[in-house]
Amino acid sequence: MEVTNRYITTKTHIDGAPKESHFGLKTEALALSVEPESNVIIVKNLYVSIDPYQINRMKSQSSSQKSISFAVGIAPGEVIDTHGVAKVVASGNPNFEKDDLGEYSVLKEGTILNKLDLMGFPLTYHVGILGYSGLAAYAGFFEVCKPKKGEKVFVSAASGSVGSMVGQYAKQLGCYVVGCAGTKQKVELLKEKLGFDDAFNYREETDLYFPDGIDIYFDNVGGEMLEAAVDNMNTFGRIAVCGVIAEYTDDGKRVAPDMLNVVYKRTRFQGYLALDYLNVYPDFISTTSDHLRTGNMQALEDITSGVENIPSAFIGLFCGDNIGKKIVKLADE
Amino acid sequence: MEVTNRYITTKTHIDGAPKESHFGLKTEALALSVEPESNVIIVKNLYVSIDPYQINRMKSQSSSQKSISFAVGIAPGEVIDTHGVAKVVASGNPNFEKDDLGEYSVLKEGTILNKLDLMGFPLTYHVGILGYSGLAAYAGFFEVCKPKKGEKVFVSAASGSVGSMVGQYAKQLGCYVVGCAGTKQKVELLKEKLGFDDAFNYREETDLYFPDGIDIYFDNVGGEMLEAAVDNMNTFGRIAVCGVIAEYTDDGKRVAPDMLNVVYKRTRFQGYLALDYLNVYPDFISTTSDHLRTGNMQALEDITSGVENIPSAFIGLFCGDNIGKKIVKLADE
Repeated sequence: MEVTNRYITTKTHIDGAPKESHFGLKTEALALSVEPESNVIIVKNLYVSIDPYQINRMKSQSSSQKSISFAVGIAPGEVIDTHGVAKVVASGNPNFEKDDLGEYSVLKEGTILNKLDLMGFPLTYHVGILGYSGLAAYAGFFEVCKPKKGEKVFVSAASGSVGSMVGQYAKQLGCYVVGCAGTKQKVELLKEKLGFDDAFNYREETDLYFPDGIDIYFDNVGGEMLEAAVDNMNTFGRIAVCGVIAEYTDDGKRVAPDMLNVVYKRTRFQGYLALDYLNVYPDFISTTSDHLRTGNMQALEDITSGVENIPSAFIGLFCGDNIGKKIVKLADE
Repeated sequence: MEVTNRYITTKTHIDGAPKESHFGLKTEALALSVEPESNVIIVKNLYVSIDPYQINRMKSQSSSQKSISFAVGIAPGEVIDTHGVAKVVASGNPNFEKDDLGEYSVLKEGTILNKLDLMGFPLTYHVGILGYSGLAAYAGFFEVCKPKKGEKVFVSAASGSVGSMVGQYAKQLGCYVVGCAGTKQKVELLKEKLGFDDAFNYREETDLYFPDGIDIYFDNVGGEMLEAAVDNMNTFGRIAVCGVIAEYTDDGKRVAPDMLNVVYKRTRFQGYLALDYLNVYPDFISTTSDHLRTGNMQALEDITSGVENIPSAFIGLFCGDNIGKKIVKLADE
């Protein structure tokens, strides 16, 4: 049996904001049979994760990123590797059978497919909040920021995939949590659904207001927000630099924090990647699934359907279109 | 007995580069006698430490610094508190006798005078390299940077009071050490006297050349050098932000590092102050005095005489006039 496989590629390198014209939909014929014991597994992709960092791989690469394997450039026309969940269609690998569900990351060296234990949660949770987005939030907050109960936590892009989790972890720990987001609707959601102590719309309110300062700034955006946070940090404050979305599509844009404040207030900045913290993955899964089951934490997901809508879903990340984890559904189970 | 006490004050707040006209020499009459059991101690100041950070106290204060006790503003006309060594002239305190030597810091709340054990070293060592400058180097390198043998260490203002010690500690640990300084003479000194593996003149060579990258950047200057270092950091590199001299006299000047690099390379920045590390003071003293006695480390000092020369000594710090720890000698023992 042969099917038509459809996938998205980039047509050129993308050095500014991504546009529909940068992307193309390709098709190829794919045979759905494998030789026994060939180790080959054919999967049907069900859901894929849509992540802002991928834009950095689509750029004309800078020398600094070349050396980082998972940040390696995506050449125009090439298949774009990502993370998602899939169902086994045909397997020449004794560890997988037809209809097994798997969580996968396609890397240059090949595909890593792990059997998926749903643990009673929807498939989509395993793409985002129980996947790398969740791990980025958990590791960034607990391992990088080393939070203590009662500390003042500020989260930017707080209604995004990572920020929405960080704010909820912080609330569970007993922190005072303020988030910023780009619409009134998102601000309401943070306060009413996710239990943030306060939230504001950064497009309308330009002055940060932290009468008691910030102990922990969880930074997803960089830019002016990082500068403002630095000015409001308490002594011995910690900044987890998780993302710099303000700079992803504008190479010339730079953060210029007041380093004199950094010295006097002994501020710590730490860039990090979720993949560095696979050691806490079991803790992350058990803590998070407990909180989700008890209803202490909410999953915030934003799901679009159809491979052809991957470009618009991706582009939307840079306009703040998504609320929560952006996922594209490619097929029914 | 009464003497004439001379001291330097600022005439105005200083918001840019300090100039001779900003300072004045004042005199006052001082009686050299104390009531028995009054606890009052009168000292003759012998040597004082001249430090760049004091300029931040002379500015029209920013709100962020107001809350930091040892960064509290110096009002024009006021006595400038500092660190130094002194000899007791008269004592109404049972713990001190005439001619005792003391190491002191004058703070707003009063004077802290500790009895000084010379340990066989010159008095000046206790003002700088065995004082706060040395502690800043020791704590910043060992405690903040957590160095490992063989790592690549870059030090800016490497011939300064702190940088010259950091580079030597790094060499003692077995690191590969590169320093930058602002004159050919300083560069030669780093390589020939202090044993740096390499050094360059940042005024002439604008491209950093680190074929194997930088694991640890010990930053005394901020500005463009910090940006360049960020671009050359290895993964999991550490940056100790000890000083930002490039910004002290130019409030508008800011560092704008590439935060995308910070994320991908998991760079850590840490602002710190020597005073936070008094817990390692005994280790610092024992390690450093051993290295000085065996000749493994060299003391780099730059001593001027006369209270009237304090302003020029201080101004010179911002022009790179000093080589090593800047000290002003006020009186003979």
